[in-house]
Amino acid sequence: MLPIVNKEIEVVLTPALLPLYQVKGKTVVVIDILRATSSMCVAFKTGVNKILPVSTPEECSLFKDFDFLCAAERNAIKLPGFDMGNSPFEFQNPLIKDRNIAFTTTNGTKAIKQSKELGAAQIAVGSFLNIDVLTTWIAHQTNDVILLCAGWKDKANLEDTLFAGALMDKLQNNFDTNCDTALMTLQLYQSMQHDLEGFVRKSSHAQRFKALRAAEDDVHFCLQLNTAPVLPVMQGEYLVNATPVSVV
Amino acid sequence: MLPIVNKEIEVVLTPALLPLYQVKGKTVVVIDILRATSSMCVAFKTGVNKILPVSTPEECSLFKDFDFLCAAERNAIKLPGFDMGNSPFEFQNPLIKDRNIAFTTTNGTKAIKQSKELGAAQIAVGSFLNIDVLTTWIAHQTNDVILLCAGWKDKANLEDTLFAGALMDKLQNNFDTNCDTALMTLQLYQSMQHDLEGFVRKSSHAQRFKALRAAEDDVHFCLQLNTAPVLPVMQGEYLVNATPVSVV
Repeated sequence: MLPIVNKEIEVVLTPALLPLYQVKGKTVVVIDILRATSSMCVAFKTGVNKILPVSTPEECSLFKDFDFLCAAERNAIKLPGFDMGNSPFEFQNPLIKDRNIAFTTTNGTKAIKQSKELGAAQIAVGSFLNIDVLTTWIAHQTNDVILLCAGWKDKANLEDTLFAGALMDKLQNNFDTNCDTALMTLQLYQSMQHDLEGFVRKSSHAQRFKALRAAEDDVHFCLQLNTAPVLPVMQGEYLVNATPVSVV
Repeated sequence: MLPIVNKEIEVVLTPALLPLYQVKGKTVVVIDILRATSSMCVAFKTGVNKILPVSTPEECSLFKDFDFLCAAERNAIKLPGFDMGNSPFEFQNPLIKDRNIAFTTTNGTKAIKQSKELGAAQIAVGSFLNIDVLTTWIAHQTNDVILLCAGWKDKANLEDTLFAGALMDKLQNNFDTNCDTALMTLQLYQSMQHDLEGFVRKSSHAQRFKALRAAEDDVHFCLQLNTAPVLPVMQGEYLVNATPVSVV
């Protein structure tokens, strides 16, 4: 049973709209289903120590000198010369256990950094893979909450919007909302929840994977529920695993 | 039977996102259901000669000297000293027949002006009140099409999003789309089409009307289908009624 917190919840469909909202002092949940925040959950399940979200591939490379693994993706493709790209399968490799990772992606890491710059009090990372642990954590927040979809190059996308709706579905009785976007994502999720994968395969990003003949398995993987029940939260400049002991 | 034009259609949820899209050379349909584009349709049905969208109330007032009627709304309220605000009922007054109107609103007139500044080849104005005439016109466009929701102060809103979905529902087989937002609005509309008014009454703007104890009848009025079968399009700086003779 989740607590009723009398806090406000809002949904923001793309980072381009985040400056329209009051972010300072709020809890922000960053959502990049295909694939940054899904991969981050997998990484922590595998046992990664911490993840440093960085803005550019050049900045990411710097951290090789400090014994970080470096992961970089742009336009759905792993950049050459990096240890990893952005596929969740890469983050299942047991060799990454206890390592630190510097990570840059087209949308997800940008959304995390922007939330921090705008003064978010707490930042967590969400995906279908950690939805229940995340939901419980959100329901116990003492701040108002923003669900921030990372989208695709500042445009809204289908899979992040649907996940925001999935969270709204679980949290709608625990929060107040006066946010049309929250109502829209809730309705969208409720009407499509029985065929999420079919719907997401129509999305522009799934079509992008298809055109690249890459990452098509990632779509199915990233829609699984609770297969990586971890709680990545920002602590200073790093994402760390704050999974409560009861879940581990 | 609508033609299949092999053109692209996209949906943009707020004017804040429009600069991310290529607008130049495209046809833009501006949507502000509550209430600017609904009121414009009513005005042309009543027999208004032309409407000049302007940015500010101060600019709007200037046109009194040129025998324009001046309509100005901000934050859902008619501004003092103007002939009209933004309620469709005001534009049913037969005294406005053959007159010119200068019109400024919180969201709708801004979206029209922005579309023009970004180089749209054609701009039309849409609402449930003219949906069928509008749909036929869109289906005959030789440009790619953008459905632009005016939203509320650069945030997305429910009623404009639903209307974009209603247009997608009618046009989905006539256009190509690689736009997640178009898919989302289509699904949202299809899942809610049997209770549009119930859903829209949950929206932040309907709640705003309720708090103001104003304009609550406007919600029902603006969700009627084809009661003002006109076609307001931009010609130079003015909206004029381009309703085809077959409809009149």
